[in-house]
Amino acid sequence: MTLNLVPFVSVDNMMRLVLHLGIERVMVDLAAEIEADFLRWDRFDKTPRVASHSDVGVIELMPTSDGETYGFKCVNGHPANTKSGLQTVTAFGLLADVATGYPLLLSEMTLLTALRTAATSALAARHLAPKDATVMAMIGNGAQAEFQALAFKAICGVTQVRLHDIDPAATAKTARNLTGRGLQVVSCISPQEAMLGAQIITTCTADKAYATILTDNMVGAGVHINAIGGDCPGKTELARDILLRSRIFVEYPPQTRVEGEIQQLAADHPVVELWQVMAGLVPGRRSDTEITLFDSVGFAIEDFSALRYVLGKVKETGFCDQLDMIADPDDPRDLFGMILRAG
Amino acid sequence: MTLNLVPFVSVDNMMRLVLHLGIERVMVDLAAEIEADFLRWDRFDKTPRVASHSDVGVIELMPTSDGETYGFKCVNGHPANTKSGLQTVTAFGLLADVATGYPLLLSEMTLLTALRTAATSALAARHLAPKDATVMAMIGNGAQAEFQALAFKAICGVTQVRLHDIDPAATAKTARNLTGRGLQVVSCISPQEAMLGAQIITTCTADKAYATILTDNMVGAGVHINAIGGDCPGKTELARDILLRSRIFVEYPPQTRVEGEIQQLAADHPVVELWQVMAGLVPGRRSDTEITLFDSVGFAIEDFSALRYVLGKVKETGFCDQLDMIADPDDPRDLFGMILRAG
Repeated sequence: MTLNLVPFVSVDNMMRLVLHLGIERVMVDLAAEIEADFLRWDRFDKTPRVASHSDVGVIELMPTSDGETYGFKCVNGHPANTKSGLQTVTAFGLLADVATGYPLLLSEMTLLTALRTAATSALAARHLAPKDATVMAMIGNGAQAEFQALAFKAICGVTQVRLHDIDPAATAKTARNLTGRGLQVVSCISPQEAMLGAQIITTCTADKAYATILTDNMVGAGVHINAIGGDCPGKTELARDILLRSRIFVEYPPQTRVEGEIQQLAADHPVVELWQVMAGLVPGRRSDTEITLFDSVGFAIEDFSALRYVLGKVKETGFCDQLDMIADPDDPRDLFGMILRAG
Repeated sequence: MTLNLVPFVSVDNMMRLVLHLGIERVMVDLAAEIEADFLRWDRFDKTPRVASHSDVGVIELMPTSDGETYGFKCVNGHPANTKSGLQTVTAFGLLADVATGYPLLLSEMTLLTALRTAATSALAARHLAPKDATVMAMIGNGAQAEFQALAFKAICGVTQVRLHDIDPAATAKTARNLTGRGLQVVSCISPQEAMLGAQIITTCTADKAYATILTDNMVGAGVHINAIGGDCPGKTELARDILLRSRIFVEYPPQTRVEGEIQQLAADHPVVELWQVMAGLVPGRRSDTEITLFDSVGFAIEDFSALRYVLGKVKETGFCDQLDMIADPDDPRDLFGMILRAG
């Protein structure tokens, strides 16, 4: 019996898995899993994530369940971390069997969050961006940038990404990593230059502040904005006027109203839930001139989908360790005796 | 650099640690840690645990933070599990650094929860039970029973435990495990027999139902009741009339009102917060005839205290593994490049 053992996907095994499958295929697969779960939206227990805020960052728990499987992610966001060589965002997550409460999988999710965030953005854009969009501006070239670029290539047919970051070294890093991966990469010295000809604008910056990465006059008619970085109370990226000109799509309103760009708007400002577009209940893009905005903050169901995908792939590939995580006495009521016998 | 590695306490290492330190000492230490944290109650972020209920059980997340360290436990409760050889309760937990969000410790908590639950019960009883109490009735002799017995011996001076369970095999198991550990153990065929001469009554049963383990006429003046098993909506152990005769002490009212025995009472029924007794703000036991009731459901701060204790002991003893849980690229913004270079 191995009741005590839980499959664990380390960072090393996650990298092996992604390299084995191919990074673009993983994001295409993740987008399919996330869309399938969004299409059974009513089946999930949904709750805004449980956040513990401090002056320098946040640690959050993101649980959900579809009645058969339970999942949660523990994730932090600490923008100043990079200055001391640490990640802004690190994460891990768990799947458990609702019938027994026993864990099914423990996994690193720093990499997996980067992958699922990009997959979700591209999935939303497939429903919302202009159909012929091939050029994407990318403002903010940090840890998430390459994942976004490749997800939009694989899922939306983007062929050119136009990079800008206040730190040219970040842009250089992103451009270097994207070399030879089938994308035309243009490094730009200003947000304005990055936006030239772009039908899709991705903002992905990390400051925990009310920032204005995009001002109103930078955004023309008909674009799709993929706003990733505003995801905490007091942390936004877009000028409020842009929001007022846009049709706004969100993952889960009770969470996004607190964390997303729309924290700048009235609590009853109309938004569309992304799953409703996927389900055909509400139209996505309605015209060539409409500005669509995906106000992304990240939702628990996306992590659930990603963990289930990883569990399936780990079963196929064996890229995991076994963790002695669950006490498993011969008689389940004899927890104490198990300790004694270990002596 | 080992930024990617997180100390992990497996079940095996938790057993080694407990055997190395001695189980009674661990519970005495845990009670001291928990009391110290209850005495700085205002410093903690407090929130009722986040529960995902199903017909057969519950999976819960229990986060808290003292502003320097963040902790949470993930724990399930599935009463029917024992029928298929599984634990009713399994758990694991995490500590993280609030300043960076980085994990400090991942630990099994099935054993640790059993230890901290018993330590908390005995700590409460030290403030609430009759000063000369030496005899404890124990109704429900499952996985938690021996831990309770030894905690009350080590922390409250109990010398005799009187065991009863609807399943005699559970009583026999508990009596056997307690042999030679300095307690007089009496196996009883009825709750009434178990109660003979007992100044402390511990109820620790697991059915997810409104049960009546104690009826009103079984409880005499002056006893202390330590009610452990009622800890979920719809899951109680005591007849309502007992509650009406008792002075009721709880961990955190917003959680206990939903989960504890007091879910049977009006939402404004007076209760005392245990930390207020510890802090000397409210008297504990006031007379020889008062019935005191600790309506225990388990609170996040107890797990936080326990995890911090384990982290300290793990640093002393080295009883842990190192888990490759955090992606740690050379340049924190180069998560993507880390994957590429692993290829």
